[in-house]
Amino acid sequence: MSDRWFLSTQPVTGLVGFGAFGRLIAAHLRAHCRIRVYDPALPRGTDIPMAGVEAGSLAQAASCPIVILAVPVTALEETVRAIRPYLVRHALVVDVGSVKVVPARIMCQELPDHVRIVATHPLFGPQSARDGIAGHRIAVCPLRGTRAGRLVAFLRRTLGLRVILTTPDAHDRDAATAQGLTHLLARVLVGMEPLPARITTRSFEHLRAAAGMVRHDAPEVYHAIAHLNPYSSAVRDRFFAIARQVEDECAAAGPAP
Amino acid sequence: MSDRWFLSTQPVTGLVGFGAFGRLIAAHLRAHCRIRVYDPALPRGTDIPMAGVEAGSLAQAASCPIVILAVPVTALEETVRAIRPYLVRHALVVDVGSVKVVPARIMCQELPDHVRIVATHPLFGPQSARDGIAGHRIAVCPLRGTRAGRLVAFLRRTLGLRVILTTPDAHDRDAATAQGLTHLLARVLVGMEPLPARITTRSFEHLRAAAGMVRHDAPEVYHAIAHLNPYSSAVRDRFFAIARQVEDECAAAGPAP
Repeated sequence: MSDRWFLSTQPVTGLVGFGAFGRLIAAHLRAHCRIRVYDPALPRGTDIPMAGVEAGSLAQAASCPIVILAVPVTALEETVRAIRPYLVRHALVVDVGSVKVVPARIMCQELPDHVRIVATHPLFGPQSARDGIAGHRIAVCPLRGTRAGRLVAFLRRTLGLRVILTTPDAHDRDAATAQGLTHLLARVLVGMEPLPARITTRSFEHLRAAAGMVRHDAPEVYHAIAHLNPYSSAVRDRFFAIARQVEDECAAAGPAP
Repeated sequence: MSDRWFLSTQPVTGLVGFGAFGRLIAAHLRAHCRIRVYDPALPRGTDIPMAGVEAGSLAQAASCPIVILAVPVTALEETVRAIRPYLVRHALVVDVGSVKVVPARIMCQELPDHVRIVATHPLFGPQSARDGIAGHRIAVCPLRGTRAGRLVAFLRRTLGLRVILTTPDAHDRDAATAQGLTHLLARVLVGMEPLPARITTRSFEHLRAAAGMVRHDAPEVYHAIAHLNPYSSAVRDRFFAIARQVEDECAAAGPAP
């Protein structure tokens, strides 16, 4: 029983949400299964120029054996309640939000007991995965049911992702630093533009690359990272405290000659 | 007349200063010429385990047709005065400091009129050029005399460097941002360690790489970038002002749920 079988024997996978990340998911999954998309901005029957991906109603997407929720974290609770009436018995529901504590709580509270739940956070986006997703990381938190193992095998072997098995709390703790810092520093760098293009170093190019990868993230992604992760405000406080400390040291060293 | 000829027909090139960067220079030039090193920490006759590189007296290093000064910017004035009595007629003196306005002024004021002067800033270091210098950048400011063109051809064609021809003022203006920001952000990142290693993104890996490349720079390099570049304090002020602005926006958005 190959990993590919995991999706390809399913008649169709439901995808709720077709923003930048939903489209990235469809582009990479459509080689392995048919996809039925629901997005309020995309009426049923809309022609989607991706073979194997078709727009359906909420009922059509939500009644698939696997349902992927690619909606902003702020819309997750409402989405989960909306799909609830259509979920088939033992369906697998997977989210892809940038934080995990809040979505895990919502899904476990709101989804019927028979539904299996895996919370995930693909640690890449349309910019950083421009040249493919293989080799990128995805955090996976199995929350309920027994299908996580086969999903993990599919992500690893078929999609080539590096799967980090973790819990929502451990995820949010680390992501608050990794993503929170990247976004903070990117905002400061963008605020300092125009940046030099000729007199640069390899290390400065790394900074520009980091900022370039996140500066066009959807505002919802930034909002989730900055405000829906219970650990982010502590990371921000530390960042600004250390920045002030460095500032004081610089001031104490006196002006340039 | 090949570019290689530029150095290889010289009997020997003088290198004053044998710290981390002096050693990097010797490692890459010794394929093209003999090198006589002077460093107060390295008595004449000390065995240097690099074929073609030998320790000499200050007089021996400073009386070569080409003299490279690889000393901290704070030691440059004293070094220039010390080599002055030994310089041969029409010698070429080249510095490699991280700032250019102050070294250019010192060299033009203190070196005899017959000496040719090129100020340079190799935009790489032992960490970032670990795998070779080809493809890295070097800023070059021709200050006096006519030999800069052949030096540039040698740097480009023989060493494979990307030569940025500029002036000390234009260099320092851009470097204050490129290097100043990298060092500031690296200090903040180092202050936030330990950083997460599993839940990371490609953009966060870029940040870590940037910090990793400069965190072990010699304190003299940091001091020159932070305090001997006339534009650095303005860059720092802007960095901290923008950081405070981002902080205020975060505070206004309220706490996480």
